[in-house]
Amino acid sequence: MSATVEETTELAPRLPADNLRRAVRIGICGLGTVGSGTVNVMARNGEEIAARCGRPVEIVQVGARRDNAACDTSKLNVTREIFDVADNPDVDILVELIGGTTVARELVLAAINNGKHIVTANKALIAEHGNELFAAAAEKGVTIAYEAAVAGGIPIIKSLREGLVGNRIQWLAGIINGTGNYILTEMRDKGRSFAEALAQAQELGYAEADPTFDVEGIDAAHKLVIMASLAFAMPLAFDKVYTEGISGVSSEDIRYADELGYRIKHLGIARRTEHGVELRVHPTLIPQRRLIANVNGVMNAVLVNGDAVGPTLYYGAGAGAEATASAVIADIVDVARTLEAKPDQRVPAAGVAEGSQAGPQVLPMDEVVTSYYLRISAHDKPGVMSQVAKICSDQGISIEALIQHEPAEGEALVPVVILTSRAKEARLREAVAQIEALDTVEGEVVRIRVETLG
Amino acid sequence: MSATVEETTELAPRLPADNLRRAVRIGICGLGTVGSGTVNVMARNGEEIAARCGRPVEIVQVGARRDNAACDTSKLNVTREIFDVADNPDVDILVELIGGTTVARELVLAAINNGKHIVTANKALIAEHGNELFAAAAEKGVTIAYEAAVAGGIPIIKSLREGLVGNRIQWLAGIINGTGNYILTEMRDKGRSFAEALAQAQELGYAEADPTFDVEGIDAAHKLVIMASLAFAMPLAFDKVYTEGISGVSSEDIRYADELGYRIKHLGIARRTEHGVELRVHPTLIPQRRLIANVNGVMNAVLVNGDAVGPTLYYGAGAGAEATASAVIADIVDVARTLEAKPDQRVPAAGVAEGSQAGPQVLPMDEVVTSYYLRISAHDKPGVMSQVAKICSDQGISIEALIQHEPAEGEALVPVVILTSRAKEARLREAVAQIEALDTVEGEVVRIRVETLG
Repeated sequence: MSATVEETTELAPRLPADNLRRAVRIGICGLGTVGSGTVNVMARNGEEIAARCGRPVEIVQVGARRDNAACDTSKLNVTREIFDVADNPDVDILVELIGGTTVARELVLAAINNGKHIVTANKALIAEHGNELFAAAAEKGVTIAYEAAVAGGIPIIKSLREGLVGNRIQWLAGIINGTGNYILTEMRDKGRSFAEALAQAQELGYAEADPTFDVEGIDAAHKLVIMASLAFAMPLAFDKVYTEGISGVSSEDIRYADELGYRIKHLGIARRTEHGVELRVHPTLIPQRRLIANVNGVMNAVLVNGDAVGPTLYYGAGAGAEATASAVIADIVDVARTLEAKPDQRVPAAGVAEGSQAGPQVLPMDEVVTSYYLRISAHDKPGVMSQVAKICSDQGISIEALIQHEPAEGEALVPVVILTSRAKEARLREAVAQIEALDTVEGEVVRIRVETLG
Repeated sequence: MSATVEETTELAPRLPADNLRRAVRIGICGLGTVGSGTVNVMARNGEEIAARCGRPVEIVQVGARRDNAACDTSKLNVTREIFDVADNPDVDILVELIGGTTVARELVLAAINNGKHIVTANKALIAEHGNELFAAAAEKGVTIAYEAAVAGGIPIIKSLREGLVGNRIQWLAGIINGTGNYILTEMRDKGRSFAEALAQAQELGYAEADPTFDVEGIDAAHKLVIMASLAFAMPLAFDKVYTEGISGVSSEDIRYADELGYRIKHLGIARRTEHGVELRVHPTLIPQRRLIANVNGVMNAVLVNGDAVGPTLYYGAGAGAEATASAVIADIVDVARTLEAKPDQRVPAAGVAEGSQAGPQVLPMDEVVTSYYLRISAHDKPGVMSQVAKICSDQGISIEALIQHEPAEGEALVPVVILTSRAKEARLREAVAQIEALDTVEGEVVRIRVETLG
């Protein structure tokens, strides 16, 4: 290479004309946002991708029920029968971009059965059926790559599975749903209510007409179990994630959090403990000084703490046509490079060699230990605070910070805001039930978990 | 795998007893900070690393001129002759952790010549001799891995070379020297002078007795060219990096930057332009709202902008025994996994297949276009500003923001702070020379480049 330094004048890399490796042949199923983005980026950056891959990458077939004006398919071989792609003997890698978990599962299983490698952006498919699919792929000696399933274009799967492989990962915490982060950012920056911010997100196309999947944390839970399975080398355990959405977060709580030096983010958290792995998605107060507290709008970020490396953070676009295509193409190149290699020369789909996974112990939510933000609506009478403090103390919980303002003009109720010490979830729930039962307290106590991420 | 979910009770992954792949045999040269960190992490996390790697990883020899109390070598085969490791027929991978560019180069070449793969944490070696070493390795069909050479434990090499492979990368900007970032952070947070902050860094062991390498940007330049070579698929061009240190940054400039909404960071910047690649290391004003502006202390971060993925950021510890060991081990596992694979099935050391690199065009610094922060010491007389504005205007430079305070009690000189429009470096230098020649201006004009990183 050193000999050719002065001879090359190309500004972009290019596969040499005498390259002998045959093209890797891709079949893409699905021409929605990600599918069209993938077709466009591969067309635009094709030469550079081939140079990096060491061989040409060709789209030999596209399976899609309809065309998409966002990409030009006039030069592509398009079929309306997506299962044709799984059966096409010319296809080396099937790229599953149709979404959903029923047809997608069948399609992927059919392709695996035909000896094809799989690249997918489908978080629900991997989170819910990954254990089955990985086993089927291992049996056939093919691989399943799913970088695009988590946090869009951020190479977090690769980082967890390869980049941090020397570490015992202790915990990770991620802002892994852009819609939810956009809503919380708008609520904080513009003082909007949840409903107003959601409507705004829907208008901008960031949120679906039915936003449940995003705002209630199901999408984040899918991504969290995928990351946790790699971080802790355990099977995917989607049904064991504790999930709490952001629809109950009020702009009042965001203001109080600010006052205490915190931001409220919707986090997916996975933590290794002696008794099992915590898997939880919920609104969380985090100190403003943490980098991840300053990740705003639709952007995603994942903070990973390894025993050797310490904290590392990965930030970028968590969705979007080309950001997700970036991850799909990275997977295609990984698979293409090792197409003819032996199965054990590839990075295993589950992150560890077969038969090596750790147990699936997930810590029940009652056993999780963390701190809490509590907002209590109390009558402005003497003695309320001592009652609350006594209840907490009886459960082994101490009060670390407190905000109590004067009642607003003409208001009988005052909000009392508390930050607690670390306590078991079950203890906290008991304390909250007792506080709610007090005569001097009205309605439900707002409870948001607090993580220092330090 | 799904079949064994309920049967496994291990909390950590473990290679199954019936694993048939032979151990990969490591020879480590150098037992300094990183060497001892690597030995310690491999001992502590050995079982998990083997499970992830799919085969045992054994340290079969260590070459070190002396022992290091930081790690236990009593069970290791230690030689005082490091070249023994390069000649040891039992060694598959030589891990070069001795540093420097003379003996290290000979050692690596000797090992390559003996058909061994190389893992190195040596940024100077790769930046200055990488082109030669990669060519030698390609000829022998072995690989050179160097994740630990840039930004410690952050998997930035892997992200650039594999994770973002679908992108045409447009630019990257990194805080890639922890010592310099610690000094600038101390200067801002505590109002310290450069000299005071440097002394503090030396006391804490963050800076060497001779800090030139860190504070003058040579270390950052090494890391920058390595990242640029991967981002733009071009040969390593260390001799073409423009380098400016932070010893000229004053706490006064940090305060003015704050007032304007900026932070001063020592950045390594590489940018693709139509006329060549910019390669430059210098103090830089960046908007406070950018995530990277809030990376403080000894931490590192790299912001990478790809045409498909948009901006992504990678953050973590840029140095330290175990953080760097994390990267060394990730490389070992990568190489171990593909030990028996064909050379073209591995990720190429230079990031592209041989013969595919782009030209080495580096844009001369005079041609670089950016904005500037200027601080002028002017006599408090009418007309100064119109003279300065006229000079800038004649060079096609406009003034975007200005700070001019009252002169301090008893001071004849007032500081005038200007943010300029984007301009070619050559034009700006000409303008500065003319401003310095004005009768109404005293001394040198302070000039710091400004990047929006948007």
